[in-house]
Amino acid sequence: MKLAIIFGARSFEHEISIVSAIALKKVLQCELTYIFCDNERNFYLIPTDQITSKRFSSGEYKKDKSLYLKNGGFFYKKMIGEELLNIDCVLNLIHGADGEDGKMSALFDFFGIPYIGPRLEASCISYNKLFTKLFAKEVGVNTLSYQLLLKESPEPIMIDFPMIIKPLRLGSSIGISIVKDKSELSYALDVAFEFDNAVLVEPFIKGIKEYNLAGAYSKEGFLFSIIEEPHKEEFLDFDKKYLDFSRTKRVNEAILPLAIQENIKNAFVKLYNPLFQGALIRCDFFVLDECVYLNEINPIPGSMANYLFDDFEKVIRSLSTSLPKSVEMPEQHYRYIHSIQSAKGK
Amino acid sequence: MKLAIIFGARSFEHEISIVSAIALKKVLQCELTYIFCDNERNFYLIPTDQITSKRFSSGEYKKDKSLYLKNGGFFYKKMIGEELLNIDCVLNLIHGADGEDGKMSALFDFFGIPYIGPRLEASCISYNKLFTKLFAKEVGVNTLSYQLLLKESPEPIMIDFPMIIKPLRLGSSIGISIVKDKSELSYALDVAFEFDNAVLVEPFIKGIKEYNLAGAYSKEGFLFSIIEEPHKEEFLDFDKKYLDFSRTKRVNEAILPLAIQENIKNAFVKLYNPLFQGALIRCDFFVLDECVYLNEINPIPGSMANYLFDDFEKVIRSLSTSLPKSVEMPEQHYRYIHSIQSAKGK
Repeated sequence: MKLAIIFGARSFEHEISIVSAIALKKVLQCELTYIFCDNERNFYLIPTDQITSKRFSSGEYKKDKSLYLKNGGFFYKKMIGEELLNIDCVLNLIHGADGEDGKMSALFDFFGIPYIGPRLEASCISYNKLFTKLFAKEVGVNTLSYQLLLKESPEPIMIDFPMIIKPLRLGSSIGISIVKDKSELSYALDVAFEFDNAVLVEPFIKGIKEYNLAGAYSKEGFLFSIIEEPHKEEFLDFDKKYLDFSRTKRVNEAILPLAIQENIKNAFVKLYNPLFQGALIRCDFFVLDECVYLNEINPIPGSMANYLFDDFEKVIRSLSTSLPKSVEMPEQHYRYIHSIQSAKGK
Repeated sequence: MKLAIIFGARSFEHEISIVSAIALKKVLQCELTYIFCDNERNFYLIPTDQITSKRFSSGEYKKDKSLYLKNGGFFYKKMIGEELLNIDCVLNLIHGADGEDGKMSALFDFFGIPYIGPRLEASCISYNKLFTKLFAKEVGVNTLSYQLLLKESPEPIMIDFPMIIKPLRLGSSIGISIVKDKSELSYALDVAFEFDNAVLVEPFIKGIKEYNLAGAYSKEGFLFSIIEEPHKEEFLDFDKKYLDFSRTKRVNEAILPLAIQENIKNAFVKLYNPLFQGALIRCDFFVLDECVYLNEINPIPGSMANYLFDDFEKVIRSLSTSLPKSVEMPEQHYRYIHSIQSAKGK
């Protein structure tokens, strides 16, 4: 399997995508090709043995081979003509905007490039925290109560303190605040509205248990990770999560009653199938009074949550041969136009 | 205003997009550039005076200038080097897949091209009829009851006859059947499942009134069309809708009590803002017992519903200067990577 890892892009999470990409080099044994998308959305082919964070922060990558997108894949210029980059499949490792918001999946779908990652609809549903809630409810998975606030038309908040304020569309804890009382509210809203013109308000439940489960659906059925209880203080802020993205060490399994483990897995399956086919996702759940609630869906989790799997490479291999097919579009026969033309006699 | 109209693409509605594009030439006086995306997803610059359906059905367009997408816009090759196609704004006129499913908006967003049309999230919500229902409910607009059926795991239908069966993700009545009794059901499902692996079942209410309203939000506020009562038999099938896409003649306003007109407009506003900013959409409503229900949102209506507006060109001009801005992404300073590097002493 010739796997290309695409990372970077125009996103608040550009840097943690680089960290994720470096982490994967340590855990994957297959032939890897690295495609960096810089902040200006230019693509570069980075030599796999040159994947260091400094290459990007220093701008040195700009000396690497330029790639561009065309029908059929990534291409690069040769002395005469051009050549198609020889890969079997791209792993979308762009966190946040461009990667998780659906743009990258649209590019791959449009240009006919097989990829591991959420499809366009799955991206849209998981990237927007309101849509995630509507979708979860529809498939029968609980979420916490919420209120949507728009920057342009702010309304009084109906949720009690303490509350958690989140930009509607970002990941990695960016712009998120826990608000304990009224004195902290206006600053928290200002911060969140810096990142999005809509924010979601949820009750903050102190001491609520959080459990993460990653997985993917392949021809072999569901491939689940262990269930992890992430170690966190009140919640992980960006700096701490950032370090989290570089994780490659196996973590310990959460100790949970079997029934709750089953409920978490059932909720995962309801959310995953069929919307997230083609992706390895991590769902973060809350458990309160033995009831399971979805917190969020990470359709491109930090370092692909490799540290949660017994055999991460096997999951990626299996997924790469189980990618969903889009509906077959017939060739154009111009039946309608021909019939109009003949009706008009021209 | 140098407006480019993009049409065609890999879609069951490829031909009606061509018809729409031809219709717009008749109604727009501004400088028009035509970009054709063929079934293989290659782009061509079509001379504006050569826009005839035959140019596409005959394959003659392949002699026209090739265009390709890059950062900043559409480009074409010159004897030496390349040149950026000089346009102010693209009007997305690709109906169905590629155009309305979010791919085209993702391409334009990624490559930094200003465009009239639904943004990625708006496309995703309106293209998938289930997501449309969830969204409409969330913003307080009624829809008819429904049931989702998946090809892989069919369940008994709980909706009474007569019912209407629709592929989950297509427009233009393709694959839609009215099912009067059990004898017609299995064929109708087969037809719908040919176009999508999920279908939506709704009750079919004979004689229900249907009203269409188009509009856009611009700096001048909402620009509404008249409310039209479409003339239809049981419902428009693809052939009839196809002809509908070539319409350029003004239609008559529906005769409706003021209160219902207001309710229709209020529902439109709830659905439109802020999700559909940047697009001219047509919402198709049902009215039953004086209650307004959303049937569907057409984010790229046939021939842009030009025939519903008093001054269509003015709406397009106003919209083209009111396009939504995406959140400003800062330059990359590589703060985190630098801090890790200095912590590691390298």
